[in-house]
Amino acid sequence: MEMEEAGRIDHLSGERQKAQFDLQPMRVLLAGGEHELDVAQRVAAIVARDPVFSKANRTRLSREELYKNSLRKASHGWKLIQQLKLTEEEAFKLRSLVDEPTFTDLHWGMFVPAIKGQATDEQQKYWLPLAYKMAVIGCYAQTELGHGSNVQGLETTATFDPATDEFVMNSPNLTSTKWWPGGLGKASTHALVYARLITDNHDYGIHAFIVQIRSLDDHKPLPGVTVADIGVKFGNAGYNTMDNGLLRFDQVRIPRNNMLMKLAKVTKEGKYISSDVPKQLAYGAMVYVRQSIVSDASVYLSRAVTIAVRYSCVRRQFGGQGNDPETQVIDYKTQQHRLFPLLATTYAYRIVGQWLKWLYSDVMNRLESYDFSTLPEVHACTSGLKSLTTSVAADGIEECRKLCGGHGYLCSSGLPELYAAYVPACTYEGDNVVLLLQVARFLLKTLSQLGGGVKPVGTASYLGNLPVLTKQGSRVSQGTDWLDHSNLLYAFEARAARLALVAAQLVQKAGNEAGFEQHSIELIEAARAHCELMVLSKFVERLQRGVPGRGVQRQLDILCEVYGLFLLVSRAGDFLSTGCLTPTQVALAKQQLQNLYTEVRPNAVALVDAFGHTDHYLGSILGRYDGDVYPNLYKDAWEEPLNKTVVTDGYEEYIRPILKQEFLPSRKARL
Amino acid sequence: MEMEEAGRIDHLSGERQKAQFDLQPMRVLLAGGEHELDVAQRVAAIVARDPVFSKANRTRLSREELYKNSLRKASHGWKLIQQLKLTEEEAFKLRSLVDEPTFTDLHWGMFVPAIKGQATDEQQKYWLPLAYKMAVIGCYAQTELGHGSNVQGLETTATFDPATDEFVMNSPNLTSTKWWPGGLGKASTHALVYARLITDNHDYGIHAFIVQIRSLDDHKPLPGVTVADIGVKFGNAGYNTMDNGLLRFDQVRIPRNNMLMKLAKVTKEGKYISSDVPKQLAYGAMVYVRQSIVSDASVYLSRAVTIAVRYSCVRRQFGGQGNDPETQVIDYKTQQHRLFPLLATTYAYRIVGQWLKWLYSDVMNRLESYDFSTLPEVHACTSGLKSLTTSVAADGIEECRKLCGGHGYLCSSGLPELYAAYVPACTYEGDNVVLLLQVARFLLKTLSQLGGGVKPVGTASYLGNLPVLTKQGSRVSQGTDWLDHSNLLYAFEARAARLALVAAQLVQKAGNEAGFEQHSIELIEAARAHCELMVLSKFVERLQRGVPGRGVQRQLDILCEVYGLFLLVSRAGDFLSTGCLTPTQVALAKQQLQNLYTEVRPNAVALVDAFGHTDHYLGSILGRYDGDVYPNLYKDAWEEPLNKTVVTDGYEEYIRPILKQEFLPSRKARL
Repeated sequence: MEMEEAGRIDHLSGERQKAQFDLQPMRVLLAGGEHELDVAQRVAAIVARDPVFSKANRTRLSREELYKNSLRKASHGWKLIQQLKLTEEEAFKLRSLVDEPTFTDLHWGMFVPAIKGQATDEQQKYWLPLAYKMAVIGCYAQTELGHGSNVQGLETTATFDPATDEFVMNSPNLTSTKWWPGGLGKASTHALVYARLITDNHDYGIHAFIVQIRSLDDHKPLPGVTVADIGVKFGNAGYNTMDNGLLRFDQVRIPRNNMLMKLAKVTKEGKYISSDVPKQLAYGAMVYVRQSIVSDASVYLSRAVTIAVRYSCVRRQFGGQGNDPETQVIDYKTQQHRLFPLLATTYAYRIVGQWLKWLYSDVMNRLESYDFSTLPEVHACTSGLKSLTTSVAADGIEECRKLCGGHGYLCSSGLPELYAAYVPACTYEGDNVVLLLQVARFLLKTLSQLGGGVKPVGTASYLGNLPVLTKQGSRVSQGTDWLDHSNLLYAFEARAARLALVAAQLVQKAGNEAGFEQHSIELIEAARAHCELMVLSKFVERLQRGVPGRGVQRQLDILCEVYGLFLLVSRAGDFLSTGCLTPTQVALAKQQLQNLYTEVRPNAVALVDAFGHTDHYLGSILGRYDGDVYPNLYKDAWEEPLNKTVVTDGYEEYIRPILKQEFLPSRKARL
Repeated sequence: MEMEEAGRIDHLSGERQKAQFDLQPMRVLLAGGEHELDVAQRVAAIVARDPVFSKANRTRLSREELYKNSLRKASHGWKLIQQLKLTEEEAFKLRSLVDEPTFTDLHWGMFVPAIKGQATDEQQKYWLPLAYKMAVIGCYAQTELGHGSNVQGLETTATFDPATDEFVMNSPNLTSTKWWPGGLGKASTHALVYARLITDNHDYGIHAFIVQIRSLDDHKPLPGVTVADIGVKFGNAGYNTMDNGLLRFDQVRIPRNNMLMKLAKVTKEGKYISSDVPKQLAYGAMVYVRQSIVSDASVYLSRAVTIAVRYSCVRRQFGGQGNDPETQVIDYKTQQHRLFPLLATTYAYRIVGQWLKWLYSDVMNRLESYDFSTLPEVHACTSGLKSLTTSVAADGIEECRKLCGGHGYLCSSGLPELYAAYVPACTYEGDNVVLLLQVARFLLKTLSQLGGGVKPVGTASYLGNLPVLTKQGSRVSQGTDWLDHSNLLYAFEARAARLALVAAQLVQKAGNEAGFEQHSIELIEAARAHCELMVLSKFVERLQRGVPGRGVQRQLDILCEVYGLFLLVSRAGDFLSTGCLTPTQVALAKQQLQNLYTEVRPNAVALVDAFGHTDHYLGSILGRYDGDVYPNLYKDAWEEPLNKTVVTDGYEEYIRPILKQEFLPSRKARL
């Protein structure tokens, strides 16, 4: 943020002066409100000025140093949260701005919500106070070495023993080893464990149990518990600050009451009783987690885009005549064509994320009055948006790295670690392919119910217009028609509807479940089209409500059009093969898209400034607010541990003998 | 290779028995001949059994340990090369199979060839013997902190001083710091430096100079030389075994004769004289480097594909009924649709790489007789293939990682490091976007010369058929028509020709150099289409020559079709918008492609076995030849340094105070 830059020369001030809109209202919009912006700015300032949170040396530490330092940050963060009496919202913000994956993420993000969702009121009264003051540290142990997405395939067992009123937790084989849970490897004292509940010689399937795994006195694993870190992951720092763990039980006994019993319970006698609480009530937690993942997708992508936009203004290449400087790479069309759509995507995801926040509160309100009618649609839309946004954000971060040329490959660019830390989002909380297939299943069901007169709701309501969408082409006849958002929207609706219909017909022809698998490629395509439409339509809807501030609405209009037209051009095959558009209409879209780049160009730096990332949070020399890249790259190189010595360690042993020809066979013969 | 697996259970033997072709002739084909296969297998065995070359701990080392260990490997490799009296071919193979980027790559791959290409015979007589016995260690110092692709923008100066008959090397400003050269940071004694030659107060542009940078006695930098490593790069091990360096000169003097003078020289009096040796003769080196990059693209991608195919057979998910095991993920269509096209691409690139090898010898023969006629076409095709294959291979490696689910994110999968080590290939030796623009320039020129009756040659000869290609549609009327390679080829030729023509017309309308930049997006698309056609046509040509061995030709036919049809379906927008294909023809291609997956499936493991990678070379638990994945993942986790202690370092300082509520404000108040 600018305050950090006082007294320094701003090499990008020329770029900032070109902006055609007011920064402050754009910041408010992106933050989600005045209050949210205020919280973000206050907490960001606390984090940025605290030396404990420095990220400067991260990629130069060994795993052990790195991990210990992440514990230090987590502990310091918790201390600040307590001593500054931060609100829950501020505490959450602080953890995310510290920007280092650590065990507290799982404690607050998974352990606590799971207790809230699955424990009885009584159980919550016991566990939540302990969790809130972190007298216990919890993690979420679901996946196993041999089992990921298919929760029903988990092999860990929890067998009830009425003689002692206990469950016996056991890992019957190697593949049942719990594997991946964050915070498990070295930090947590408790784990929320998913296991097959067995009582009365009957397997009742997967249920949740709280299992203490480490002593609260000396932190040693309890008897029968084998626990460790699973080893190094992608990237230098990246996710290696997290102790993703493995966990095995050898007949570990826990009190019966450690089973979370909101949805089902086991009596003292070992009788299994389903509760009359509708299972759907647990659904709120999943919506919450997914909406935060979507909102994170925008945040992570916005960091990469900020770095790439700023450095593309600093970096120059070719084109300078005589003594003129070379051309800024951001002025090249090829650079704009890769970068500006990602900028637009970041804005689009921010807006759809805000809408999901609203959806979450809507779902919670409905659940309170046992209204489950919207849940299938909500499930499809959160699954789909999680899948779409994380995939695109991960690829987009890596694309931004490539857009920075060779220097993007240096860890001091911040981009390699950003990618490495972000990309697991494509896998956790639902593998992205599996999720798209769930969206497809919803689309098939919606289509099959149309005949019965069931009117699709929410994000699927366009399917109610199927007869028109599958017949009527686009009205676009000249380039500027594409700037009419209703034309954009219609094209996306028609494409999604037609792809869904084609897939449905294929599956129907096969006539059974095998048909679903057999045509899964087409189903995935239909699901993706549906998700891309959702993002576009939420963007358009938001703009229809109007946005205050000089020039702000205009910029958002442009970004919305860039988002839509870029996708349209990239997926031209879909639009053309389904007959939604003619080749001429696609060509007009291409042309219009390139015109829009010219409008984005002068605003690019201000549009990324509006994300409001501090230099601390970006952690990137290429993305520095002041654009002072090269002197700082040079300075940073000297921090490399290899540069501590002038003559490298290994010279005497390995280089000198080469130079002195000590390996020549003739010499060997002489010895 | 199998020999490593003696006595172990082969969990993939069932998969291997399904194969419908003979492995040995396929291996010979992929290796490029019996002799090449023999060399590869002998050297691979040497490397795999030598404990010095072990890769087991790589991602757990600090940068300093990692670098020192890479010096150890380089030194040991050189010793083996000398003592086993390996041929040049065997030595090259050994270095590549050690699989660790290091200074010798640059010495042999860039320093020596540059001397061969740019030094006079006399200079070669002096330098080459020194280089061959590694009495000097050389690197290649071209790029600067502020200058990458635009070689003409380099700022380092070499000013001739007739008073002493020396060049004075100088770095006039920060951005002129040499930056990135591999082997420079800590290892090299000499650098081949590109600098602006200034004599007689005139700037003659960029020339090459050999500059000694470190003492041959004690390896200290020479006076006036500042040299260091540029710091940590993407990935844990990855390219961090390489000492990419920075270099500054403060008026460093070198003998006049250290300028490489094959193409131009400076006399004692300071007179600049261009030699009458045609500059084109230096061209062979670039063709050589690029053909080896294309062949590497296939090798690297083949490693990732091997890992992903094998693990997709081991990994099971969903679908098991009752006590049946779950479904192997390789049986899912969505997995096949992402994986098999990459398998096919690997084969396609192998074959185009072999053709480039032939092209290199053809170019060298022509250069000997001063025949420069094919150079423009050769330049376009090597530039384009370098760009296409490295981009696709890098993305493909990362896609393979994602195809392995969560476990692909572990470094023990081998995939994160494979990606991190490979992806710089997209940037070095010509940025991939810049290279495609060069291809586009060639296409424009070729088209503009058609009118004058110049017949395009080689990979551009299809443009001679422009009138037909731009008018006549595809003959495909049923699915199986797509299995006729001439139909595939025609569609790709028509698409490339039409896109080139569209781009050319746009540029022509603009009428000047600005038009080239203005339409660079369309030009890139045309160039990419041209490159994809090249790969397909070389694959088809190779198959027309026939391939021996039971079932081998059949498998290659299938892979060629998968390669072509997958691209066609992915780029359907191109084919449809240019009118090359109808929506029906695209739909038929989709269907046919999915049928082909079913034919690939039983051969998948054998098709990756044919690449012949040893477990050492793959360095992946997921990709183990024997498929024994889970026990080894579990075992490997315990090697993680964090697991050396049961209670983690940092517990007392950082975790215990949290658990004991030492940070509560109330407590603070009490103190």
